[in-house]
Amino acid sequence: MKIALAQLNYRVGDFGNNVSRIIENIEIAKSKDADVVVFAELSVCGYPPRDFLEFDDFIRRSDEAVALIAEKCRGIAAIVGAPSVNPAPKGKPLYNSAYFLADGKVLAKAHKTLLPNYDVFDEYRYFEPNRLPYSVVEYKECRFAMTICEDLWNISDDPLYIRNPMDELKRLDPDVIINIAASPFSYNQPETRRDILAKNAVAYNLQVIYVNQIGGQTELIFDGDSMVIDEQGQVVESLKKFEEDFCIYELQSAESKRQNAKPGGFRTSYSQNSISLIHDALILGIRDYFGKMGFSKAVLGLSGGIDSAVTLVLAARALGNGNVRAIMLPSQFSSDHSISDAVVLADNLDVQYEIIPIADAFHSFEATLKTQFAGLPFNLAEENIQARIRAVILMALSNKFGYILLNTSNKSEAAVGYGTLYGDMCGGISVLGDVYKTQVYDLAKFINKEQEVIPHNSIVKPPSAELRPDQKDSDSLPDYDILDRILYLYIEMRTGPDELIAGGYDAEVVKKILRLVNNNEYKRYQTPPILRISPKAFGMGRRMPIVGKYLS
Amino acid sequence: MKIALAQLNYRVGDFGNNVSRIIENIEIAKSKDADVVVFAELSVCGYPPRDFLEFDDFIRRSDEAVALIAEKCRGIAAIVGAPSVNPAPKGKPLYNSAYFLADGKVLAKAHKTLLPNYDVFDEYRYFEPNRLPYSVVEYKECRFAMTICEDLWNISDDPLYIRNPMDELKRLDPDVIINIAASPFSYNQPETRRDILAKNAVAYNLQVIYVNQIGGQTELIFDGDSMVIDEQGQVVESLKKFEEDFCIYELQSAESKRQNAKPGGFRTSYSQNSISLIHDALILGIRDYFGKMGFSKAVLGLSGGIDSAVTLVLAARALGNGNVRAIMLPSQFSSDHSISDAVVLADNLDVQYEIIPIADAFHSFEATLKTQFAGLPFNLAEENIQARIRAVILMALSNKFGYILLNTSNKSEAAVGYGTLYGDMCGGISVLGDVYKTQVYDLAKFINKEQEVIPHNSIVKPPSAELRPDQKDSDSLPDYDILDRILYLYIEMRTGPDELIAGGYDAEVVKKILRLVNNNEYKRYQTPPILRISPKAFGMGRRMPIVGKYLS
Repeated sequence: MKIALAQLNYRVGDFGNNVSRIIENIEIAKSKDADVVVFAELSVCGYPPRDFLEFDDFIRRSDEAVALIAEKCRGIAAIVGAPSVNPAPKGKPLYNSAYFLADGKVLAKAHKTLLPNYDVFDEYRYFEPNRLPYSVVEYKECRFAMTICEDLWNISDDPLYIRNPMDELKRLDPDVIINIAASPFSYNQPETRRDILAKNAVAYNLQVIYVNQIGGQTELIFDGDSMVIDEQGQVVESLKKFEEDFCIYELQSAESKRQNAKPGGFRTSYSQNSISLIHDALILGIRDYFGKMGFSKAVLGLSGGIDSAVTLVLAARALGNGNVRAIMLPSQFSSDHSISDAVVLADNLDVQYEIIPIADAFHSFEATLKTQFAGLPFNLAEENIQARIRAVILMALSNKFGYILLNTSNKSEAAVGYGTLYGDMCGGISVLGDVYKTQVYDLAKFINKEQEVIPHNSIVKPPSAELRPDQKDSDSLPDYDILDRILYLYIEMRTGPDELIAGGYDAEVVKKILRLVNNNEYKRYQTPPILRISPKAFGMGRRMPIVGKYLS
Repeated sequence: MKIALAQLNYRVGDFGNNVSRIIENIEIAKSKDADVVVFAELSVCGYPPRDFLEFDDFIRRSDEAVALIAEKCRGIAAIVGAPSVNPAPKGKPLYNSAYFLADGKVLAKAHKTLLPNYDVFDEYRYFEPNRLPYSVVEYKECRFAMTICEDLWNISDDPLYIRNPMDELKRLDPDVIINIAASPFSYNQPETRRDILAKNAVAYNLQVIYVNQIGGQTELIFDGDSMVIDEQGQVVESLKKFEEDFCIYELQSAESKRQNAKPGGFRTSYSQNSISLIHDALILGIRDYFGKMGFSKAVLGLSGGIDSAVTLVLAARALGNGNVRAIMLPSQFSSDHSISDAVVLADNLDVQYEIIPIADAFHSFEATLKTQFAGLPFNLAEENIQARIRAVILMALSNKFGYILLNTSNKSEAAVGYGTLYGDMCGGISVLGDVYKTQVYDLAKFINKEQEVIPHNSIVKPPSAELRPDQKDSDSLPDYDILDRILYLYIEMRTGPDELIAGGYDAEVVKKILRLVNNNEYKRYQTPPILRISPKAFGMGRRMPIVGKYLS
């Protein structure tokens, strides 16, 4: 029994594209004598389809697409993911299903039981969990236990779910576990995922065939990482991360030797790799956002600071250096090095750049508002005018030339609201909005590992918004070391103020930071989608009241 | 048995405020010889608490607040709503519970079974549905069936849910149904809600005591509309809409005459009332957004058109005419009447206004971008610069004087992306973002019913963005009559393109509109929260992929 794993990049709602990619890979698998080819969860309609699932029209097109694919399954079987209509009169109208296609038709369907409905996931919004008895699919004398992503995650005492689909499937004596997935990247996900899959393989004494998708879907980045795990929990096949990939695996009989077995070791390699994974994830996220929106060129404001420097490098790697245009927008408060550092970087990358000073526009606004602002001191209002002038210029270039503006804010700033709404918070996609400032430095060092791409001075100079004379981030904020640790504990770990203070953090600092985070929900509500690389990013995965008064 | 209904305005996460308001009303109820006083769903922590529920600290504070309230329940009982910890080792960590407090302690708890997880609701994200056996609470020889909002909604063949809590509770022979709710307003909700409650009363032959909250919680507006319904489905007590209210109801024995019975008739009165309800809802939404954010004053751009005119009237009614500042921002393309109509309106309302021309700032940007734009024709880029200059000025006033900028875009524009991101799409809260253009006209006529507040000319002139010479909305868009009907069918009713075309709409128009709606998700992602008055508003309740390719 030869099983092909097809790890593809799908487009949400683009049935034409998805069907032709799936059929193309069925043909390839067939030409290589595979018996079955496995695709990812909801591969037919793309993941996440979100509220498109509420349209009958969308479901009808999905059904038609499945039928088209089934038609091509002759002499080979395919497992694809698609929604299917719940025929019962009660319950949610759809299932999230794995279709087993063979002999030109749908041979069997399995419905997802465990529906993630936390963080970025909303599956209970659309799908009825499977409550039907399970069955294995028998094809060419092999018995397949078809499961869908989360179905394997109720293992090792996960308290979230009550049922465990594999416990029930195991009683039906399957020969192999198939798991089709749509599992987005976060920097701890590769380790967690392999751990869970290995535990299943060992617990049920079965090989696990795991197929995930790759690609950016707005904020979610799918890393692929499809694999085969043997009954001892060893990874015996492992597909590429962040790229399409394909392999054929010959299912091993229980007695056969595992000659393919690769060393495990993912646990120890994780921490060293995480910055490299984040780097690759962000590049894929940028590339696919542009590609799937139908754009090829980016513009961004290059300040000489670390955030825009790292964003520019990632964008140049994602889109090609000829497709990125960097704009320096100095104000009367900009330091000399803000331009010189930016120029060095643009030259290093061979990226087109221009210097467009904003002083004239700023004076024009001062004159326009002379009556209203008469007698009032320069303050945040004038600081924000500068940031917003920059946004007007960048968006004008975006509109005139068909660029997408890249947002360069980092997660620490977004957390405490240290940014100007409709100013530096603008953009089509936020590249670093899930990367804490201290991680931005790590990324810069990673980028500079082999040669100095980002000027040393951009890395070592004190961060500043340069919106008033001699301004430094540290005037308003605690040191980023402390800030990021408290933010991580509050945002990722949901540690409350009492625990933070008991943990040794200064009470005033803790209260100030938590208040800033909570009081700036209104700003984050209007920020661009943020490429997600952590287990808890701002956006879909973190839903907070705006008018709440908790810790504020 | 005297039951008090306390319909209050809560603050999410503000336990101090909520506890003192609840205790204050317990004291009032006690002074009026009530036996039990009923508060709304999650009244202790406020609704919707969203991801605050994931913080142990938040739950601990909620538990402490419940204990404080219980302490005050001596000689009187109270029913309040709060999260409670699920003690089981499996399942979600919380229940959404009704607490029956008496004799200084928690006498009983009932957990919500039917958890809404559609539209704006995410309850399955946090809560485990009740799977325990039901029980009624007996207090002073009265048997209470405690239910929470959605628990009563699986009636009349609702396909969504499998269980029906009242079917099971009825077997325990209760004397009355209590339903504590957090049911947000939409223009069809009052009718739907009364219909459902009446069906329950009749089906189970029981009186229903229904207590909802009032108040704006960012985009959600709670209308209250608490009521008592008798066994015949007649409304016998009805609390105010959009205001705090309180009443005491003497539970009727089955034999007693219903002397209080008021005529039903809500069905027939609905459609005539809906514009009036929308008007009142938006005013409460504005008032509470400001109040709960700690602001009192608004600024907005007044164009002479209908949208900003209606927004200004609503804001003046919500905040007081002295707390609203209107800014006219004419460009070189503005018509004379854009100023004159705006001035008449501001004078009618006695609202402070200023005229701040944007031509100088516009010329300054033209000069700043001279090199980049050399030889290129005036187009959308220059149009957007004007809209963004207005935003810079309005936000500068907001920052300088501590105003919140009101967004004036309507739902039709938001749907098709007819607006400038970081320009006229700015603001702290969108007042009309859930009101179609044709409904904006209805609101204007409603406002002018007794006297002409909004100048007749603002109502009758053809809508225009005035960003280029002689521009009209109808240059780019179908007539709003047609546009709004197609948008309603697509957005609210989720009608697909084939059905729309089969329904008689022009195929090209349908395809163009659906493409515009889908291709502008990226803009709506960054818009302010939108006050929700329809069953399907943009924002939390409509979750769409940005990079999707369906119908685009």
